[in-house]
Amino acid sequence: MRRAAIVGGGVIGGGWAARFALNGWDVTLFDPDPEAGRKLDEVLINARASLPTLYDRALPPEGRLIVASTLEDAVREAAWIQECVPERLALKHGVYRDIQRYARNDATLGSSTSGFKPSALQEGAARPAQILVCHPFNPVYLLPLVEVVPSPANDPSFVAHACSTLEQLGMRPLVVRKEIDAHLADRLLEAVWREALWLVNDEVATTADVDDAIRFGFGLRWAQMGLFETYRIAGGEAGMRHFLHQFGPALQWPWTKLMDVPALDDALIERIANQTDAQADGRSIRDAERLRDANLVDVLRALKRRDSGAGATIAAHEAQLPTSPLDPTTDRRQPLTTVERQVPQTWADDAGNLSESRYFEVFAQANDRVVALVGGASSSSPTRHGYVAVDSHVHHLRPVRGAERIFVLTRLLPSDTGQLHLFHQLRRDDGEVAATGEHLLQHVDLETRETSLPSAAIAANVQELVEGHAVLPVPFGVGRRVGQPG
Amino acid sequence: MRRAAIVGGGVIGGGWAARFALNGWDVTLFDPDPEAGRKLDEVLINARASLPTLYDRALPPEGRLIVASTLEDAVREAAWIQECVPERLALKHGVYRDIQRYARNDATLGSSTSGFKPSALQEGAARPAQILVCHPFNPVYLLPLVEVVPSPANDPSFVAHACSTLEQLGMRPLVVRKEIDAHLADRLLEAVWREALWLVNDEVATTADVDDAIRFGFGLRWAQMGLFETYRIAGGEAGMRHFLHQFGPALQWPWTKLMDVPALDDALIERIANQTDAQADGRSIRDAERLRDANLVDVLRALKRRDSGAGATIAAHEAQLPTSPLDPTTDRRQPLTTVERQVPQTWADDAGNLSESRYFEVFAQANDRVVALVGGASSSSPTRHGYVAVDSHVHHLRPVRGAERIFVLTRLLPSDTGQLHLFHQLRRDDGEVAATGEHLLQHVDLETRETSLPSAAIAANVQELVEGHAVLPVPFGVGRRVGQPG
Repeated sequence: MRRAAIVGGGVIGGGWAARFALNGWDVTLFDPDPEAGRKLDEVLINARASLPTLYDRALPPEGRLIVASTLEDAVREAAWIQECVPERLALKHGVYRDIQRYARNDATLGSSTSGFKPSALQEGAARPAQILVCHPFNPVYLLPLVEVVPSPANDPSFVAHACSTLEQLGMRPLVVRKEIDAHLADRLLEAVWREALWLVNDEVATTADVDDAIRFGFGLRWAQMGLFETYRIAGGEAGMRHFLHQFGPALQWPWTKLMDVPALDDALIERIANQTDAQADGRSIRDAERLRDANLVDVLRALKRRDSGAGATIAAHEAQLPTSPLDPTTDRRQPLTTVERQVPQTWADDAGNLSESRYFEVFAQANDRVVALVGGASSSSPTRHGYVAVDSHVHHLRPVRGAERIFVLTRLLPSDTGQLHLFHQLRRDDGEVAATGEHLLQHVDLETRETSLPSAAIAANVQELVEGHAVLPVPFGVGRRVGQPG
Repeated sequence: MRRAAIVGGGVIGGGWAARFALNGWDVTLFDPDPEAGRKLDEVLINARASLPTLYDRALPPEGRLIVASTLEDAVREAAWIQECVPERLALKHGVYRDIQRYARNDATLGSSTSGFKPSALQEGAARPAQILVCHPFNPVYLLPLVEVVPSPANDPSFVAHACSTLEQLGMRPLVVRKEIDAHLADRLLEAVWREALWLVNDEVATTADVDDAIRFGFGLRWAQMGLFETYRIAGGEAGMRHFLHQFGPALQWPWTKLMDVPALDDALIERIANQTDAQADGRSIRDAERLRDANLVDVLRALKRRDSGAGATIAAHEAQLPTSPLDPTTDRRQPLTTVERQVPQTWADDAGNLSESRYFEVFAQANDRVVALVGGASSSSPTRHGYVAVDSHVHHLRPVRGAERIFVLTRLLPSDTGQLHLFHQLRRDDGEVAATGEHLLQHVDLETRETSLPSAAIAANVQELVEGHAVLPVPFGVGRRVGQPG
């Protein structure tokens, strides 16, 4: 089992711990704060309810999480050590000295610093080449971006290995080409922050006005495309060159003003804090976190549908998660496990139960899985022939909660050639059947919608499973009409 | 019929025209460019495929769109005139002089300017009080934000009327408290833009690096929350004050550098344009627009689920769109029209057809509508008793394409007391039945899941509809088992 050590258990450290543990790593966390364990638990509650629900496959079993009592215990066996202590250079240097005293020589020592260059962090270290910047974004368990900033002291193969590990955690390493204070994202963020502080300072806007100016407009664009790709489109048919020529001069006007920094004195801090609290509309920080996470899950799943931006990162990670293949070792006389996943928290209705159409979505996933297992194509495949749904019947037995782990057992029933007659049981983690689904798929020419025959190989796979499953007792619910008594 | 005039038919003018027309306004557009009509059509194709699919109800019938041959024809009868000409103050002054010569005195004259203050626009105008800044964001037909910037010359009731009109278009007017060059959003955007140009100029990053630093990280947060609300959460349990005290000093370091502007010379323009084209990975501007719009629809619909940010704007607009109520004038002997909408483009699979589980989503919407019509509650209502799904059977007859207009006709079938037995026909706009849905709902105690009886009033409403519908012939498909022939 791979082991990660997290040094510093605040919002960022807790987020890293959750990201590693939910991807199957054992994690030891060290923080002198006696509250560290409780704070970690709070982060884990949020992470467990959100991260796994990004995927339509199950993540590996969660790793063990231990709050270590000494730094030595935390880092000794770790393959990855992530430093998340406050942004003071002398403090970080001291922490690296202690870490490198106990750590494995081949461990990666990533720093979560948002400001310091790696060469500054490496100064005076026993093994400078072991340290590099891996700057994540809050919430670390959901946002994929990690700025990976090496210095000339780091070996390229060491950097590549770090990136590969981050990708296995479902993250998106962005290697920064030149060291620079605050790396890339925080340079952009600080530019906005400085301007926003001026707008609030000069009473041009409240904090809510600034936030609304972002989230009702360009913030929606930036969730999928960044600045340049957006402006390329804004240039109209002539693209980026036109945009730069047209808007370049106009954009210069305000550039000459407001370049200094408003004094962040007590009065301004109070104004900002009070206005921001008012925006929260009574939501605690924890409530706001949960709302943020639920929205992030839905936004990321939306982007995943067409492999855009961070959605592509999720899709690539999901493709690495295991599913059971139909290979010669599969027992043909047992129902197939066609789905194994944690359903999104966001699939629940206001009462917390999975809404009706989501059962259908799970069974559609099971249908697609069977079609893929027998070697067929479905209606969304780029082929001429494939299986399409004819009849679908869902019978609801018990509620399923949002974020619950579920699995689906599937039987193939006898059917005409060219058809797939499937019977699914959606089971909760405790094995209870929550719903059944009976589905008839027909093999067709996808252009004309005329029935067509599948290849001999597909037909043979179907036949083998149908015959194997024929030895099982007929499950309750097959052939049921709507409203047929129990 | 309300009429809007759009003066200037570029990306922004075309977007305004689409926003008005799809919300039922007649639109006249004036632009001396002979290509104006073709460019407008291109925008309309995108807008028609995306804007209506934000809503689970139908928008009003589209208004007429006319490309006028003179400015006079365009503006004469318009209640709203939107100026979208290039950002040159003298040009805008000339356009306002011509507009005000022909326009109604009570029309609103909004300027799409991203830079000028309203008082600058109003200089020398015949009726300065008629002019105010209404600055939208691209794509105007999808992004809700409009910065409304009045000057002291504008009457507050005039500003309020403008905001109310924008809200009826599904937009989110943000009234800016003090005139300032570039208003709010573009001040923030220009700060980022300046910093991004430096990063590319100094070869710290490519344009793709900058975009990735946004869209894999903070861009995802900004789609729902802005800067301040995000930082309040980042402050952990102690909130914004803690954040400002902790990060305020650290953020000052890079503030003292890179405050001037890199020269936007030909070499830098070429570098940026080439890098940005490379990012597009072969997608044309039009393809990129369609991808952007499809993602925006999905992101906005995701945010709509819990009324967050721009999702709340969509939800509020949707609530104003009409549905047929169950009132004394409803003919009890006709099927109910329970759904009328344009299905999202994004509900289609790769082959362009509605994917299987979406039929179920439409029928679930029809079920909810019947429950609401008879006065009942569903499982997501904050009540103790309500209807939950027991059995659901969908029979697929014909494919439905993404972005198609559909409607659902619903019959109530006889059932035991406490049950609702519904039979839906999902029809395409041409009346053809694409799928049927047969559903049994049971009234239960939502906590214990024991069956319970609805109130006498609900039961009477159900009975009245069941008896009315009993005179209709039994529709094909009722009581059908999965795979039952014909």
